[in-house]
Amino acid sequence: MSALNPKRTVAELKELRQLTGDDNGAQRVAFTPTWVAAREWFQKKLETLPVEIHRDAAGNLWTTLRGESPKELLIGGHIDSVPNGGWLDGCLNVVAGIEILRRINAQYNGKPPVTVRLVDWADEEGARFGKSLFGSSACSGNLDMNEARGLVDKQGIKLPDALANVGIDFERVKDSGKELQNAAAYIELHIEQGPVLLDLDLPLGAVLGTFGVERHAITFHGQAAHSGSTPMNRRKDAFLAAAKMSSEIYQIAERSYSGPRSKVQSPKSEDANPGTTLDFGLETLDSPIGGVCTIGSCTTKPGIVTSVVEECRITLDQRHLDATKLATMLTEAKAASERFATEGNVRVSWERIWQIAPRPFNDDLIGLCDESISETCGKSHRLPSGPLHDAAEVAAAGVPTVMMFVQSLHGISHNKIEDTKEEHLELCVTAFDKLAEKAMGWIQKKS
Amino acid sequence: MSALNPKRTVAELKELRQLTGDDNGAQRVAFTPTWVAAREWFQKKLETLPVEIHRDAAGNLWTTLRGESPKELLIGGHIDSVPNGGWLDGCLNVVAGIEILRRINAQYNGKPPVTVRLVDWADEEGARFGKSLFGSSACSGNLDMNEARGLVDKQGIKLPDALANVGIDFERVKDSGKELQNAAAYIELHIEQGPVLLDLDLPLGAVLGTFGVERHAITFHGQAAHSGSTPMNRRKDAFLAAAKMSSEIYQIAERSYSGPRSKVQSPKSEDANPGTTLDFGLETLDSPIGGVCTIGSCTTKPGIVTSVVEECRITLDQRHLDATKLATMLTEAKAASERFATEGNVRVSWERIWQIAPRPFNDDLIGLCDESISETCGKSHRLPSGPLHDAAEVAAAGVPTVMMFVQSLHGISHNKIEDTKEEHLELCVTAFDKLAEKAMGWIQKKS
Repeated sequence: MSALNPKRTVAELKELRQLTGDDNGAQRVAFTPTWVAAREWFQKKLETLPVEIHRDAAGNLWTTLRGESPKELLIGGHIDSVPNGGWLDGCLNVVAGIEILRRINAQYNGKPPVTVRLVDWADEEGARFGKSLFGSSACSGNLDMNEARGLVDKQGIKLPDALANVGIDFERVKDSGKELQNAAAYIELHIEQGPVLLDLDLPLGAVLGTFGVERHAITFHGQAAHSGSTPMNRRKDAFLAAAKMSSEIYQIAERSYSGPRSKVQSPKSEDANPGTTLDFGLETLDSPIGGVCTIGSCTTKPGIVTSVVEECRITLDQRHLDATKLATMLTEAKAASERFATEGNVRVSWERIWQIAPRPFNDDLIGLCDESISETCGKSHRLPSGPLHDAAEVAAAGVPTVMMFVQSLHGISHNKIEDTKEEHLELCVTAFDKLAEKAMGWIQKKS
Repeated sequence: MSALNPKRTVAELKELRQLTGDDNGAQRVAFTPTWVAAREWFQKKLETLPVEIHRDAAGNLWTTLRGESPKELLIGGHIDSVPNGGWLDGCLNVVAGIEILRRINAQYNGKPPVTVRLVDWADEEGARFGKSLFGSSACSGNLDMNEARGLVDKQGIKLPDALANVGIDFERVKDSGKELQNAAAYIELHIEQGPVLLDLDLPLGAVLGTFGVERHAITFHGQAAHSGSTPMNRRKDAFLAAAKMSSEIYQIAERSYSGPRSKVQSPKSEDANPGTTLDFGLETLDSPIGGVCTIGSCTTKPGIVTSVVEECRITLDQRHLDATKLATMLTEAKAASERFATEGNVRVSWERIWQIAPRPFNDDLIGLCDESISETCGKSHRLPSGPLHDAAEVAAAGVPTVMMFVQSLHGISHNKIEDTKEEHLELCVTAFDKLAEKAMGWIQKKS
C-alpha cells in the first residue's frame, strides 16, 4: 500500500506554477490556452490511476474512481486563476485531490467503499466575464442564463461565443446538473483569503459556510453651492451625510456579533439535507461569528474644490453567515442613511447591486473537518468564509458540504505574493485526506 | 441738474441681457465676440459724457471724468461673465457706474471735486483659462507671469496668443499698474453670491473684505483588502479616515467664530494705507465672522465594491477673513487628519493646491458704506465675501477699498437663475451713488 505523500503535492504545485505562472503570478485564466495547458497537465497526472475522466456540459472536468457504492464523495476545486493570481488559490485543492485519489486507490486496491470523484470546476474566478462560479452555478442550476448570455469580455467577445470556442454549448450548460445525482458529500480545500488563521497562528481551520452578501449603491442628493459664499448651516452637503456612513458600518458590524445563540437553517435543508443546522453558540466555537461591512467606492459630483458636494454615491457590501443578522445589518444601514440624510437636509436613495443568501455548511461534516484538523495539528478553529467558493453552489444544490482552510502567509489573495508555508501545505494535505476518509465512512453510515 | 435714475439702470441691464445673453444665461465670456459686443455697447452709453476712455496694457477699460483734484475715486466692476452665467454678476457694477457718472457729471457741471474713474476689469471670471482676476491682478502686480504664460484653454490656445488676438501684448500687461498711481479710494457694487442677505431679509450689505483661502488635497494611504475575508479590526481603511474629516471641518468652522476680539491688519496697510484696521468685535457687527470649510471632492482607489479602500483623496477648501484664524483652521485640520490616520492605522499626506491671504477692506469706507445703506433702506449688515473679487486685488495694491452687496434672490450665482428683485436693484444704485458721493468727500478731507 502506497502511503499519502504530501511532499509530492508541494512538488506538483511548484511544477504547475513553473508551467502556468510568470513573474507576475499565476496566469491560468479560464478558457485561455494557459488554462487548457494546466488541465492537460492535471489530466496526465490522473491517467496513471484506474479512473474515468470526462468533461460535463458546463466544462467542469470530472475524474471518477468507482467504489462499492454508487454514493459519491466529491472533492472539488478549480485550476483556473485570476490574471497575476496567487499560485495556490484554486489549484491547491485539485492538486491535493490527485494525491488523495492515489492514496484511496492504493489503500482499497482500486475499489473504495464509496465512489470518489474529483471535480475541477470551470471558471470559478470569473476573471474574464466578471461573473464568478460559472461551472458550479451551472451545475447547481443557479446560473442566471439571461444574464450570462449577455456577458462580454474586454474584447467584446460574448460568453456563449467564448464557450463555443472551447467546445461548450452555452444553451446546454445546465445539463451538468445530472453530475450531482449521486452526490452524498462534497469537500473542498482552499487557501484562506484573509488573515484569521494567520492572526491565531493556526495552520488549518474548518469552514462554517459562506457569507450571504447584500451589495448596494447608496446615493445622497444634496445641493451644489459655492464653497466661499455658503454659510456652513445653509449647506446641503451630500458628502457629509455619506461620510457619516463610514464609522457607522463599523458599529453595525460590531453589533452583528452580539445577541442570543442562533440556529441557522441551510436554505434547502428541509428537503435534501435534513438536520444540517449550525450551532453558533459560543461554547462550540473558538470565536463568535460577526459580519463585515465595506464602503469600497465613493464618488462626488460636481466633485470640484470650490463647490459643496451635490451628489455623493458610495457602495456598501455587507456579509454575514446568518441570514437574519445580515438582514438586520441592512436594515440598520438603511435607517442610519435616512437619519444622516435628515440631519444634513439631503435625500438618500438605495439601489441593490447584488445579493446572495448565506450558505451554511453541513454540521456533521464540519465536525469531521474539525476532528481531521485536530488529529493532524492539535488545534482546529471554525471560521466563516467571506469570499464565495464553488462549495457554496454545491451546498445550495442540497449536497452536504464542508471546506477546509489553510493559513495564508500575508492574509492576502488574488495577488502574486499569496503564499503558504510548505509545512502548512503538507499539513493541509494530510488533514484533508483524513477528512476524505471520515467523509466516506459518514456516507456509508448514512446509507 | 439731472437726478440719479435707478430705473434707467435696470432698463439698461435688461438691454445688455437682451444683447449678450440667451436662454442659458449670460454669455459674456472674456475675449469672445460677445464680450467685445458688450464693451462696445458699454462705451456707447458713456460717449455722451465728457469723459476720456482708454484701454490699458492689460485690457482693462478706463473711463475718466476729470475733477478739480487729480486724486481719484475708482468705481470698478467687470462686464465679463462665466458661460451660461447670471445676468447681474459683474455687469451690475459697471452699468450702475454709468448712471453714477451721469449724476456726478450733471451735479458738478462736468467738474467734480475729485477725478472719478469707472474701470471695467478684463476677465474677472477666468472662465476660459481657469485663472480669475486677470486684469485686476495684472494691474495690482500680483499676476504670476510664469504661470499665466502657460495657461491654455480647452482648444489648446495659449493665453498670450488669445490676448494678442484682441491686441494685448502679454509681456506688457503689468504696465497697467500705473493706472493706480492717483487712486485714493476704490468702491465696487456686486450681487452677493450667497444667501446671507436673503436669510436676513435685507436688501444691502457692506463688505468687510474677501476671505483668505487655503486649498489642499489630502490623501489617506491604507491597504486594499478583500471585503469578505478581512475582519473589521484588521482593516487599514483609507475611506474611514478621510470620511471622519467631513464632520470635523464643520466643527473647525464653528470654532473659528469664537475667541477674543481681533485686530486684522491689511497686508500692505503699513506703507500705503495706514490705519485701515478692522475691528471684528461683536458690538460693531450684526453677526460674528466665522470661516467656512468645504470638502468638494472625494476619490477612492481601487474604488471597487469588493475591496477596502487603499487610497482616498479629498480636497479641502478653507476660508476666513482673519489670517490668524485661517491659519488655526488649517492647523486644526492637519492635526485632525493625523489623529484619524493614527486611529485607522493609515498614513496621510497633504499637498497645497492654492492659497491667498485675506484682503480686509478699509474701515472708514466700510463705515461710509454702512451709512449709505442705512440712509437708503434703514438697516445695513456687515458681511465678509467668500468669493474673490477684483476689489481684493485693488485692496492688495494698497488702495482703500470697500464693496457693497445686493441681495441675491436664490442665494446662487454662476447660474442663469441668478436674480435680484427690481426694487433691490434700484435701492442698490441709490445707495452705491451715496457711497460714491461720501467717498469723494472722504478723499477731499484726507488730502
